[in-house]
Amino acid sequence: MRAVVLRTHTGPDSLVIEDVPDPIVGPDEVLVDIRAAALNRADMMQTMGLYPDPRGTTPEIPGMEFSGHVASVGSRVRGWKAGDAVMAIDAGGAYAERIAVHERQLMSVPASVDVGDAAAIPEVYLTAWDALVVQGGLTSGRWALVHAGGSGVGTAGILIAKAIGARIAVTCSAGKVAACRELGADAVIDYGAQDFVAETMAVTNGAGADVILDVIGGDYVDRNIRSIATQGRIIQVGLMGGGATEVNVGMLLGKRAGIIGTTLRGRPLEQKAALTQRFVREVLPLFDTGALRPIIDSRFPLERIADAHRYMATNANTGKILVDVV
Amino acid sequence: MRAVVLRTHTGPDSLVIEDVPDPIVGPDEVLVDIRAAALNRADMMQTMGLYPDPRGTTPEIPGMEFSGHVASVGSRVRGWKAGDAVMAIDAGGAYAERIAVHERQLMSVPASVDVGDAAAIPEVYLTAWDALVVQGGLTSGRWALVHAGGSGVGTAGILIAKAIGARIAVTCSAGKVAACRELGADAVIDYGAQDFVAETMAVTNGAGADVILDVIGGDYVDRNIRSIATQGRIIQVGLMGGGATEVNVGMLLGKRAGIIGTTLRGRPLEQKAALTQRFVREVLPLFDTGALRPIIDSRFPLERIADAHRYMATNANTGKILVDVV
Repeated sequence: MRAVVLRTHTGPDSLVIEDVPDPIVGPDEVLVDIRAAALNRADMMQTMGLYPDPRGTTPEIPGMEFSGHVASVGSRVRGWKAGDAVMAIDAGGAYAERIAVHERQLMSVPASVDVGDAAAIPEVYLTAWDALVVQGGLTSGRWALVHAGGSGVGTAGILIAKAIGARIAVTCSAGKVAACRELGADAVIDYGAQDFVAETMAVTNGAGADVILDVIGGDYVDRNIRSIATQGRIIQVGLMGGGATEVNVGMLLGKRAGIIGTTLRGRPLEQKAALTQRFVREVLPLFDTGALRPIIDSRFPLERIADAHRYMATNANTGKILVDVV
Repeated sequence: MRAVVLRTHTGPDSLVIEDVPDPIVGPDEVLVDIRAAALNRADMMQTMGLYPDPRGTTPEIPGMEFSGHVASVGSRVRGWKAGDAVMAIDAGGAYAERIAVHERQLMSVPASVDVGDAAAIPEVYLTAWDALVVQGGLTSGRWALVHAGGSGVGTAGILIAKAIGARIAVTCSAGKVAACRELGADAVIDYGAQDFVAETMAVTNGAGADVILDVIGGDYVDRNIRSIATQGRIIQVGLMGGGATEVNVGMLLGKRAGIIGTTLRGRPLEQKAALTQRFVREVLPLFDTGALRPIIDSRFPLERIADAHRYMATNANTGKILVDVV
């Protein structure tokens, strides 16, 4: 099969298409003909030799999420059959024509969603839902603050918050304010012109946000603590702005608030499978009601994977960047 | 009634005994004749004008926990009657002959415990249990790390961990190592001679502690992050070593771990009452089985309250310091 392989780790130029052997399909696994894959920041870090696939598979094929059709199933698989439209997030291997995935990590593509668009769903919706709802406890009436509101996770966060009756403020650059408003954010904070602490306290009538989803880190950590409500939870899902920082633990104590670090990729299979199954029950139905939808910024053919990565590095996208494998 | 009143805030010398009016008893409240009160660090801070009673009652009577007998009950109280042996933690007013408390914050003194000793139970056992079990998720087989193992909360933490089948490491000064061992701690770390990060990783076979209860803060925060297990929880219940500190949020992310700040005193009545009722069901029975017991370091007559405070400031105690009101 054709696949994007990393033989060096010098950035986008390292992404080279090669012919490689088809994946070996274990008895609990499903072989999927990939229709489209989606880009993630972790893939960019992987091209630079940072954040590698924890399984260390050879050759190193990046790509964490995809959609397509089932080609064949392992001997113990009962839940899937050839031709099923599926999507999933995995630790790597998705920039390729075929991938073998554990059957419990696979999800059906919702009936209302095109198979070619579904690759935009798994990572951002699982991440935003797990952070906001499962770990953050976001419910109807509560306030979320989501940084990078125009990113894939940010846009998914906006739709999830509105779908469950919660309220949401997002931060973004000036160029993405209109898009975030259009998606339904209750408050959009232009981080270049406004202080998100002051704005969050203002829209929540001084109470602060009940849940904060942060991919930035750095000096945002302490500002998040100033923006969080009593008993609120700050869910740290990334550290684009740096990891070691001065933190006012005293304010965390006074507010009885918490900071929880999280990643999807580092979890063991059984936890990923459990999260996926709950997501299938609780979140996927909201695609067919129209409350949620894949949010796609742009698509590139697989041959232009390096260009797709260069585009992602500009931070110009609102929503996901896809690569069409076929 | 006689009560200890704060008219100034210059430390132990501010603790002066006066004759003051009896408390007014609301319809949902119970009037208690106090037998003994227990000292807390928050009381020390209160004598210096820090951490005042959030209710701001006048005159300012410190003291957060007590035991005694019910003197009378408000018109809507059905759960208590005169003569019942009771104990409770409240926001203030316990360094006195009488106190009025909401009926849902009151607990029966376990049959096996002397009323005069029971004042040593509420604060340390509620704090240690809430932090380790309720918020930290400590269960049988898991490892806890508790700092200040010889303190009231530390000693309660040791007995709770052993009572539920968990394992516990504690840090303490050299002079308290023997006492912590005798209480049943699985590992006792002399913080003056040993590095608690290395010791915790060693006793947990490199996994780290699943729950850390910390009253210190300061540079312990970052060392706790290095000592925590994957998906572990650091429960910050105090900040004796300072509040603002450099924190490695990146490691929190990699371990999918969290830091949760908490206090009992700042919670609204309904949360205190709910916690108290759950404690009555889940923890108090362990006193009558012998698994838990009040751990009392020393007792002073009410007249010597200032001496009791001066003694607490030396950190020489293992377990609680009580004042006998009658």
